[in-house]
Amino acid sequence: MDKCKYSTAVILGISIILSAGREILAQPMQEMTPMVGAEIFIEPGQTAEEIDTWYRLMKENGMTICRIRMFETYMHKPDGTWDYSLFDLAYQAAGKYGIKVWGNLFPATDFRDVGGFKFPRSKEHLESIAEYIKNLVNHFKQFKSCYGWVLINEPGSGTLPDEVFTMEMFRDWKNKQLSLPFNNQGYNIFSFDEERFLVEYNTWFLNWLRNEVYKYDPGSHLHVNNHAIFQNVAEYNFPAWRQVLTSLGGSAHASWHFGYFSRNRYTVAMSANCEIIRSGAGELPWLMTEIQGGNNTYSGFHAMCPTRAEISQWLWTVIASGGKGGIFWTLNPRASGFEAGEWAMINFQDEPSDRLIAAGKVAGVLKDNAGLFAAARPVESGINVLYIRESLWVEKKLQTGGEPYEGRDIGGVMKSALAYFEALGEMGLQCNLKEIGEFDFSKPDYAGITIILAHQVALPSRYWKGLENFVKSGGKLIVDGLTAYYDENAHCILKTGFPLEELFGGNVREFKLTGNIFNINLDNPKLALPGHCWQGTLITTTAMPIGYSNQEIIASRNTFGKGEVIWIPALSGLAGRIQGYSPLVALLENELRPDLTLVPFRFRERQEGMLLKTLKSDESYVTLVVNKSGVARSIALINNTKMKPLILFADKGGTVTGNDVITISSEETIVLLWK
Amino acid sequence: MDKCKYSTAVILGISIILSAGREILAQPMQEMTPMVGAEIFIEPGQTAEEIDTWYRLMKENGMTICRIRMFETYMHKPDGTWDYSLFDLAYQAAGKYGIKVWGNLFPATDFRDVGGFKFPRSKEHLESIAEYIKNLVNHFKQFKSCYGWVLINEPGSGTLPDEVFTMEMFRDWKNKQLSLPFNNQGYNIFSFDEERFLVEYNTWFLNWLRNEVYKYDPGSHLHVNNHAIFQNVAEYNFPAWRQVLTSLGGSAHASWHFGYFSRNRYTVAMSANCEIIRSGAGELPWLMTEIQGGNNTYSGFHAMCPTRAEISQWLWTVIASGGKGGIFWTLNPRASGFEAGEWAMINFQDEPSDRLIAAGKVAGVLKDNAGLFAAARPVESGINVLYIRESLWVEKKLQTGGEPYEGRDIGGVMKSALAYFEALGEMGLQCNLKEIGEFDFSKPDYAGITIILAHQVALPSRYWKGLENFVKSGGKLIVDGLTAYYDENAHCILKTGFPLEELFGGNVREFKLTGNIFNINLDNPKLALPGHCWQGTLITTTAMPIGYSNQEIIASRNTFGKGEVIWIPALSGLAGRIQGYSPLVALLENELRPDLTLVPFRFRERQEGMLLKTLKSDESYVTLVVNKSGVARSIALINNTKMKPLILFADKGGTVTGNDVITISSEETIVLLWK
Amino acid sequence: MDKCKYSTAVILGISIILSAGREILAQPMQEMTPMVGAEIFIEPGQTAEEIDTWYRLMKENGMTICRIRMFETYMHKPDGTWDYSLFDLAYQAAGKYGIKVWGNLFPATDFRDVGGFKFPRSKEHLESIAEYIKNLVNHFKQFKSCYGWVLINEPGSGTLPDEVFTMEMFRDWKNKQLSLPFNNQGYNIFSFDEERFLVEYNTWFLNWLRNEVYKYDPGSHLHVNNHAIFQNVAEYNFPAWRQVLTSLGGSAHASWHFGYFSRNRYTVAMSANCEIIRSGAGELPWLMTEIQGGNNTYSGFHAMCPTRAEISQWLWTVIASGGKGGIFWTLNPRASGFEAGEWAMINFQDEPSDRLIAAGKVAGVLKDNAGLFAAARPVESGINVLYIRESLWVEKKLQTGGEPYEGRDIGGVMKSALAYFEALGEMGLQCNLKEIGEFDFSKPDYAGITIILAHQVALPSRYWKGLENFVKSGGKLIVDGLTAYYDENAHCILKTGFPLEELFGGNVREFKLTGNIFNINLDNPKLALPGHCWQGTLITTTAMPIGYSNQEIIASRNTFGKGEVIWIPALSGLAGRIQGYSPLVALLENELRPDLTLVPFRFRERQEGMLLKTLKSDESYVTLVVNKSGVARSIALINNTKMKPLILFADKGGTVTGNDVITISSEETIVLLWK
Repeated sequence: MDKCKYSTAVILGISIILSAGREILAQPMQEMTPMVGAEIFIEPGQTAEEIDTWYRLMKENGMTICRIRMFETYMHKPDGTWDYSLFDLAYQAAGKYGIKVWGNLFPATDFRDVGGFKFPRSKEHLESIAEYIKNLVNHFKQFKSCYGWVLINEPGSGTLPDEVFTMEMFRDWKNKQLSLPFNNQGYNIFSFDEERFLVEYNTWFLNWLRNEVYKYDPGSHLHVNNHAIFQNVAEYNFPAWRQVLTSLGGSAHASWHFGYFSRNRYTVAMSANCEIIRSGAGELPWLMTEIQGGNNTYSGFHAMCPTRAEISQWLWTVIASGGKGGIFWTLNPRASGFEAGEWAMINFQDEPSDRLIAAGKVAGVLKDNAGLFAAARPVESGINVLYIRESLWVEKKLQTGGEPYEGRDIGGVMKSALAYFEALGEMGLQCNLKEIGEFDFSKPDYAGITIILAHQVALPSRYWKGLENFVKSGGKLIVDGLTAYYDENAHCILKTGFPLEELFGGNVREFKLTGNIFNINLDNPKLALPGHCWQGTLITTTAMPIGYSNQEIIASRNTFGKGEVIWIPALSGLAGRIQGYSPLVALLENELRPDLTLVPFRFRERQEGMLLKTLKSDESYVTLVVNKSGVARSIALINNTKMKPLILFADKGGTVTGNDVITISSEETIVLLWK
Repeated sequence: MDKCKYSTAVILGISIILSAGREILAQPMQEMTPMVGAEIFIEPGQTAEEIDTWYRLMKENGMTICRIRMFETYMHKPDGTWDYSLFDLAYQAAGKYGIKVWGNLFPATDFRDVGGFKFPRSKEHLESIAEYIKNLVNHFKQFKSCYGWVLINEPGSGTLPDEVFTMEMFRDWKNKQLSLPFNNQGYNIFSFDEERFLVEYNTWFLNWLRNEVYKYDPGSHLHVNNHAIFQNVAEYNFPAWRQVLTSLGGSAHASWHFGYFSRNRYTVAMSANCEIIRSGAGELPWLMTEIQGGNNTYSGFHAMCPTRAEISQWLWTVIASGGKGGIFWTLNPRASGFEAGEWAMINFQDEPSDRLIAAGKVAGVLKDNAGLFAAARPVESGINVLYIRESLWVEKKLQTGGEPYEGRDIGGVMKSALAYFEALGEMGLQCNLKEIGEFDFSKPDYAGITIILAHQVALPSRYWKGLENFVKSGGKLIVDGLTAYYDENAHCILKTGFPLEELFGGNVREFKLTGNIFNINLDNPKLALPGHCWQGTLITTTAMPIGYSNQEIIASRNTFGKGEVIWIPALSGLAGRIQGYSPLVALLENELRPDLTLVPFRFRERQEGMLLKTLKSDESYVTLVVNKSGVARSIALINNTKMKPLILFADKGGTVTGNDVITISSEETIVLLWK
Repeated sequence: MDKCKYSTAVILGISIILSAGREILAQPMQEMTPMVGAEIFIEPGQTAEEIDTWYRLMKENGMTICRIRMFETYMHKPDGTWDYSLFDLAYQAAGKYGIKVWGNLFPATDFRDVGGFKFPRSKEHLESIAEYIKNLVNHFKQFKSCYGWVLINEPGSGTLPDEVFTMEMFRDWKNKQLSLPFNNQGYNIFSFDEERFLVEYNTWFLNWLRNEVYKYDPGSHLHVNNHAIFQNVAEYNFPAWRQVLTSLGGSAHASWHFGYFSRNRYTVAMSANCEIIRSGAGELPWLMTEIQGGNNTYSGFHAMCPTRAEISQWLWTVIASGGKGGIFWTLNPRASGFEAGEWAMINFQDEPSDRLIAAGKVAGVLKDNAGLFAAARPVESGINVLYIRESLWVEKKLQTGGEPYEGRDIGGVMKSALAYFEALGEMGLQCNLKEIGEFDFSKPDYAGITIILAHQVALPSRYWKGLENFVKSGGKLIVDGLTAYYDENAHCILKTGFPLEELFGGNVREFKLTGNIFNINLDNPKLALPGHCWQGTLITTTAMPIGYSNQEIIASRNTFGKGEVIWIPALSGLAGRIQGYSPLVALLENELRPDLTLVPFRFRERQEGMLLKTLKSDESYVTLVVNKSGVARSIALINNTKMKPLILFADKGGTVTGNDVITISSEETIVLLWK
């Protein structure tokens, strides 16, 4: 490498600006205005001028934060010495333009390794990572622009790597497991040790990384980005991560991660991704650490180039979900390796693309309304779509191949939860999307609160009491599909004394695979829902039947304490996802109506392909509306407030008439301020 | 495991009823009325009350036999002791309700092993199996309900396992092989040693198991169930198994095994499966050891839940094929492991499903006509569709991938045989479906007998003389497709002096891949058959051409001795399977007409989607008719007897008018008694 | 093996005819009339009579050359002795009928090895190959019929075999590599060592084989046949092979190798295959070493049986491409092993098929016009479609899977080049199809010469100057797709100072994945081209924009020196391949018009599915026209000569009216002589 090249830094008049106490850390992120930023991809070959240009472009387009992959390979020389000069240029330029830098730990790995390793390979490897962290952190913490550390890129590996270190950790872990708390009633059960260990192992490694960083930069901001959330989520224990991190993040790349969605649903995919992370973060702040910024050449599963409209949609969706900002991958294209020339927000002439300009416009609105957005928090609708880690595990373990059914293949569990999320979205309702372990079952009163368990096939025993308490205390529980077929051990609890019989007010008689789509005729409410794959039949104890097929009960409603359980043992959510949500929306309207008076804004009528999210900031509301329907629309809202709207952002000339009718072009994003 | 749990047996007042000479073995199975039964799936966690309930339900629904998977894992304790108490409960309850029990040997294997291993892994493993058998058999033979042993679950592994024991057996086997009896004429040939050894190895292991069982329970009833017959059949040497077993069986699960058929053809699939096993059994009795009893959740390739109509169809098809009964998999759902909650005939409340009730109705008819059915034997039509083990081997070995053609891909050989079976079925004719080695070529006279060789690509040299003798002695041979292209070594005998030239009365000039479907215009009879994939052209010696294309002979008819060979060197069977059997039925009508006067009943006209099978019992006939056409039908029979019909069974109100017109609903099964 | 069998040679009165100086080698192949021939597949089991018959059939059908696979396995006895007698019969029969024999080296390999190994496995293996060559060559060089040696069957393995010998060679090769000549500008780069070594390794092995043969038969004719050219071509360094071989060849089997084409494009596939080999051969003569002669049973990816019309088309296409003949695979079917009974030009009765008769008719025309065809050379149109080895490598290395796009998947690079080849073909223009390294960049003047670089994603640095010189000196360069996105290291040169900026007159701003098909509206010429996958936008320096989309430049025209560069940064070729070439032909008409006055014959209008190729022989022209359009056609030519046509060959009664209108049946081949 030609070191002389970096001496151009001197020519540019840059001197190392040390972090005088790093005042940028003073303000808690939770109180900050959301930031717009991008990854600056640093690699040898780049010049100081280029790097300076990129930071200048960031500043010119309203960006205030960047993330850098801190390649050990490009710092740690073969002779053992360290040369940080290339990355110094970036930290210095960031300081010059007032950009915060998150250094993403990236210990040495093969040039062809696109995302980095997820676990150490050996004790020696672990030691070399510690040594890397020591050198890296001690050096870069000196910069004023240093805003902390991303501990690892995209943890989440799918399966346990078959490597010495991992296998030893696994062995030790197994030796430490006490007898299972679960009462197996004498039945033999599957082991989910690998899955359980993988969850803890991810947390362990994050914590180890934190401890290493904090040896040299105690109290610094720590962040991490999960990825491929709809597939990998069962591997992440977000509540445990809250003890490790300062803020949570994610990678949400349309072309790599949104395979469960078609392109016109990528915005709702982004919304779902945000809600999962928001729930995971709990009281921690969060932001979207990687959002696709540019074109795919050979990389990406569903190759694409985002439009400027999509950039606005995604960024506003993050903000309207309470995110503290979004960082695009990437500002500048890397020139070498996989993804060379791809993903960038600037063109090959270092000029802003229409996408960067679009992001800049969002940043401008945020800046102009800094206080408003700093204080804005998502409005709580009281609706909770829950997914269950063990349901994902069981669904995966029991696969035997064969003719495809969406509900039976891998993905059926998550897509069923997403289906309710999407159907509620068509009503203009924003709901929580939580792993069941993230739901707080300890409250005394759940009046007005709804939980939806859609085809969550495995319902672990540790949640049974909590669910009972939830309903008993006024909550509403909607049960869909094969929910509670298994417990956490893939044991069929329908067979061996159904532990939820009292709560649900009945039992399943049988499930029968009935077809891809079939009808479920309900009496109360009176409507015909589509079902998918299996039709369950019930025998009720305390529940009231609300639907019959061939003289058999196929749905029921059970009052339990102050609450109620609606049980439709068929995949109605997924059926709606396949052929349209109109009947499901009608059902949800009926079930949720009493509680919706508290929701400030929603659609007057079901709106296919529209997204609505609302933030509250002190006494104001901020509402995001996105039109993915493919045509221009006029949308009537139910406005439960007395407030009047102001347009903060509309990228295609959208307007508001009166206090409740929005006129919006196809692909347009509108942000309204209500006062 | 909680042993105390089983002490509830005492509470129920059950005491061990020893098998006082086991009089249930006294009656030869061949003379018995067909039995209806089910697998009772026993696993720790179950209570004595549950087990008792299941046997009671069996009795209440007319079931008289059960099969139990005798898990060593649940008997043989880690300390080396044996605890049979869980399974004792089952044998005792069976005795209480008069149910016969087949104990299915199931030596220790992993909990995730759904079907059990097929061969020992090592000498030590073999010894441990022997030890298991000793303990198992010595204990359970004491029970009055003990009706013998199923030696292994579903032998048939597809390929040789790469394990020490197998490899040593294979090496020894190869060392013992003498020089091939085959005259290779100097040509190099493929080795089919692995395939040949696998056949013998399966038989060897069955025989070893028999010998171990007979050390402790000599003369007991021994049974085994093959599986996935249309794929695995080339691995089974049924004639050799006759020396090992008391009765033959099979697993015939729609969702696992009938992939060559669409759902509306599952009944004909069951019929074909039965005929293969009937032929394999020879003089031995046979029954269907596993029939799908319930729903699939995650298991099964073509997931489904049988309807009650299908249960009737399948069970009657077994009986009308001469089977001594059918055992459903399963009565009760297992609660743990793969298939938990699936496959069962009772619901989660231990109540009979509509399927169990349907099976019980069949059982009732059998019981009410016990003598009739005990003596009933399939009527012999004289028609034999033969498949050839080596044709399956060669087809598999020569695959090179590429664009699919049904006739060229794996399955072409078996589907071609099935095509003729199906076409004959649409005529109301029941034919034999035999491996060629099961056909008796030693008779002096074959007048009225037909053999169909449909795309049996490899015709081993050991059958050449037999086929000549068959035709010479009055038999009719119908040859379709690439039959006799190869010998048993995949050597192309068309090229090197066609050994069947005299019999067929000619030679193949060429085969040409012509398309998915093309026309074959015949002169005698005058009709246009569809062909598939290859069109062969002939040069005749003694044969008479009966079809031309571009001045080339494409079909011929050869008189040979007292018989005749019809040769159509194109895949007419498979073409019919693809686009309908009407032309093929016309051809078969023409060819078989003289011999059909002996068949008591058949359809007056071709009936798509209808099944007809006939048993003879002393001077009566019993006829099964199933309607899979999707609509209600009135079907005219040709009744070559003077007899009049009585309805024994009709599950949707079907009727008979006069002596020959049946009115039958869609999916209905009708059983008629003719006197 | 039965040696006595071969003594029938004596009965036939054959004695070994020694090669008295082998006068058949005297005439240089380049001056010979093209030959028609076939592989004689020799295997033990065959009789002397059969072998004699096959050679007689060859002679009777005008064939003059054969190739024989010289199986070591059938010569080298287990006791170490050599028995050549079987193959002697073939060389003798060949001599008797005046057929030249190419002995194809085929050292011992497994019976199941269809194509032979491509590299030695070990040093010992290499020595055994040398020993085989010594024995083989010393023996068979004695025959008068010996016409030389095919060094290996179908070199080209796709990837480096993971075997000791190869790995050691690779290690040694890497140790010898000097520092890369390439200036990586400091950027890290991918290694393409394996790909680069594989190219050299293939050449090394060919050369080693040559040296071994020349130890015993110096100066003998050496030939080799590559295969699957559209996939494997990146592995072949034809210019280097010119130093090793006497003539170049190829295997061009429709059913194995033409998967990028549908059947009605197999003739253009053959034409493209020929042009690649012609370019590779340079001044060396070449012929097509393997052409599919007969039917597929189980072999072949796209199984088929060629029609006699296809045989004529393929053979004439070879000849009209300047080939010195074609050898069909095979004359006789092998009887054992993979491909038994397949591929042959004679039937199972050793009679000529319609395909052999068709080939014989072509041979007859060649014989009757021997001088004409001996001197005939393809007419040079000055148009060069270039493909680039490194583009194929980079495309393959960067694959990440996912949703398919033809232009993004493996094959996009080659299909893009083929698209222009096909579009030019619809204009009746024959172009060169060359690896860029085969193009001569050293000339002083390129007026009237065109190069097309269609989606050649990687443009190695060593060609940059040459391309500049080409255009500067009057050449025209047409650039399509992502050409020059990467250099030879998959480094994105669009990003780091585009080295072709001056030549192209601009830079790429961005590529955006836009869809499967989209429109590109050009101003000059005025037309709407379809594009595929990505749309590039340009920033021009010296170039003139010739197309806009959303105010962005999407095509340009740059005058550079005496020449011009047309740059359309979208996949227009592949888009045409997907939905028709009409707009692309319009563009090419416009660009090439000034230069086409030199082309003697072309179509007056675009002709879909028609092929036209022209040879020049002294002062005459020979023109091939093939009709693959599916219907009979009358085709008007532009005849830039004053000459009048004579029909040399027309296999379906085609005629010529006036000097320029050809009436031709579907599937017909017409060959015209113009004087």
